[in-house]
Amino acid sequence: MIRVAVDALGGDRAPDEVVAGALEAASESVQPVLFGSARLDTGGLELVETTQEIEMDEKPAEAVRGKPDSSLVAACRAVGEGRADAVVSAGNTGAMLAACFLELRRLPGVARPAIAVVIPAKRGPTVLLDSGANADARPEHLLQFAYMGSVFAQEVLDVRQPEVRLLSIGEEPEKGDQLTLEAHALLAAADDLSFAGNTESRDLLAGAADVVVCDGFTGNVALKLMEGTIRTVLEELREEIVATRRGRIGGLLIRPAARGLRSRLDPDTYGGAYLLGLRGLAVAAHGNSSRQAVANAIRLAARGVEHDVVGRLTQRLPERVLASARSETDTK
Amino acid sequence: MIRVAVDALGGDRAPDEVVAGALEAASESVQPVLFGSARLDTGGLELVETTQEIEMDEKPAEAVRGKPDSSLVAACRAVGEGRADAVVSAGNTGAMLAACFLELRRLPGVARPAIAVVIPAKRGPTVLLDSGANADARPEHLLQFAYMGSVFAQEVLDVRQPEVRLLSIGEEPEKGDQLTLEAHALLAAADDLSFAGNTESRDLLAGAADVVVCDGFTGNVALKLMEGTIRTVLEELREEIVATRRGRIGGLLIRPAARGLRSRLDPDTYGGAYLLGLRGLAVAAHGNSSRQAVANAIRLAARGVEHDVVGRLTQRLPERVLASARSETDTK
Repeated sequence: MIRVAVDALGGDRAPDEVVAGALEAASESVQPVLFGSARLDTGGLELVETTQEIEMDEKPAEAVRGKPDSSLVAACRAVGEGRADAVVSAGNTGAMLAACFLELRRLPGVARPAIAVVIPAKRGPTVLLDSGANADARPEHLLQFAYMGSVFAQEVLDVRQPEVRLLSIGEEPEKGDQLTLEAHALLAAADDLSFAGNTESRDLLAGAADVVVCDGFTGNVALKLMEGTIRTVLEELREEIVATRRGRIGGLLIRPAARGLRSRLDPDTYGGAYLLGLRGLAVAAHGNSSRQAVANAIRLAARGVEHDVVGRLTQRLPERVLASARSETDTK
Repeated sequence: MIRVAVDALGGDRAPDEVVAGALEAASESVQPVLFGSARLDTGGLELVETTQEIEMDEKPAEAVRGKPDSSLVAACRAVGEGRADAVVSAGNTGAMLAACFLELRRLPGVARPAIAVVIPAKRGPTVLLDSGANADARPEHLLQFAYMGSVFAQEVLDVRQPEVRLLSIGEEPEKGDQLTLEAHALLAAADDLSFAGNTESRDLLAGAADVVVCDGFTGNVALKLMEGTIRTVLEELREEIVATRRGRIGGLLIRPAARGLRSRLDPDTYGGAYLLGLRGLAVAAHGNSSRQAVANAIRLAARGVEHDVVGRLTQRLPERVLASARSETDTK
């Protein structure tokens, strides 16, 4: 039985959609445990009562320090103390990261945890990381991200030998900013990674590689740009279509196809983002998550527990990669 | 009569599509002048004979130094020496930048020229800069980009008081990497700019502002990601549609609407990117430009000459903004 701690107060549509999603995800093997106020109607799920709440727009570090009994921090603590196997929140992602730093701590030698998002690319899923845990990064962080992404793709996506690429502004090794030029050299020298060189962003949704690494600023810009562009293109197409009678009839006929596509590309379908590099499993769901999205995020977390993603990361991050970032880690 | 120097050998589809585009753009007020080999069939347009050619994959600085009589370098030189009013090339953009540095030089006080691309956003055109001239940037460069983009939007897009936003990973001023945090402070302090704060990439295609500034790495990633995502979404939709008979009939009916959308979002429609911050007008067209795209790029260049974009930039970049970057400029 996998116990998933769920922050019932996190997200734009909490608590109703979160509780509904938890109920939907509950199964013989997955047991969601809700963290939230005593008044919450849990539909029969286990509740851990908490007295505080972190809002979407609070400053992460302050909020986490100031609200130790918030649903978010308490849910993370449950994982840190072994009372749950994973934590899921659709709340303030920055605060979730801060809470995980505090309550779960980093894996030994990992300089920076990363947010790994699975993009539903045309040729199959692509793990994009860092999708926004750290705005600034150093080349050795990108190397760690590559290892973490590879282990994740092996364990969670069942890719035997994941191909890794570096997001840059040209496929040639000499194209990029200072960070990617240096990261490219580190990645190319790592012979236990299947590094296939740079990829340009234009291929990201078509399918660039199993794992694509970049700094968190670039990854976050890329992820949100992809989401926004998909939404805008489909909206504009709809507007063009309904502008004529001929179009409106055609629109009715293609509706099932358009729905299929929209749901495949919908962030809710893939549910959530893993925070990798911590001593426990954490999944951040979209702030605007529906019950469907919350349920998927809980299942994603359970799958990570089942496949022991955290244990595999500990075993498989090479010693020299950890060592290269250790001095920095130890001083923090 | 506006004379536009056209690099007839630049681009994947040169020289045929380039010459055809130049012929299409020729008018009573616009006179394209082709630069290329003596054997070129120019269809009656003026030809300046050159003996060398720069390939798409050559290293920019070396190529430009080593091939002073290439069609690209000669076309840029014509503008530098006053024999043409603007230059257009669909060739190697890096080489074009290097040739412009050499033959046109930077405007006094401009630290870094920037590539400005007009995105066909839903709410109207958005100038995105830097779209890739410099992979790395400093905060004061982003401030210069904001002024250059504003002048461009006023002169070429007829926006009276252009709203400027900074591309970042959250709308709050404290969200971003080190570069955007510092750039935000500079932009917010510039009271002669209409700075409206940060924008997230998810709004870029819907319409975020008249001018969006970022470093060249981020801008290039964003631009290519948008192009690739639009293409992939429309492709995937087509595949979903033709998978059923019902869909195929609907597909025929919506075809005009889909074509309208595709052409509005097609990079060929907006034609080219301005290189801003030089002592002459330069427009880089897409490497894969069709005759239509080349013609649009030539018209875009002519429009820039008509509106005296270079002169306006010289007059309107505030002295203190130029001074802040001058020490760096002078040592180069």
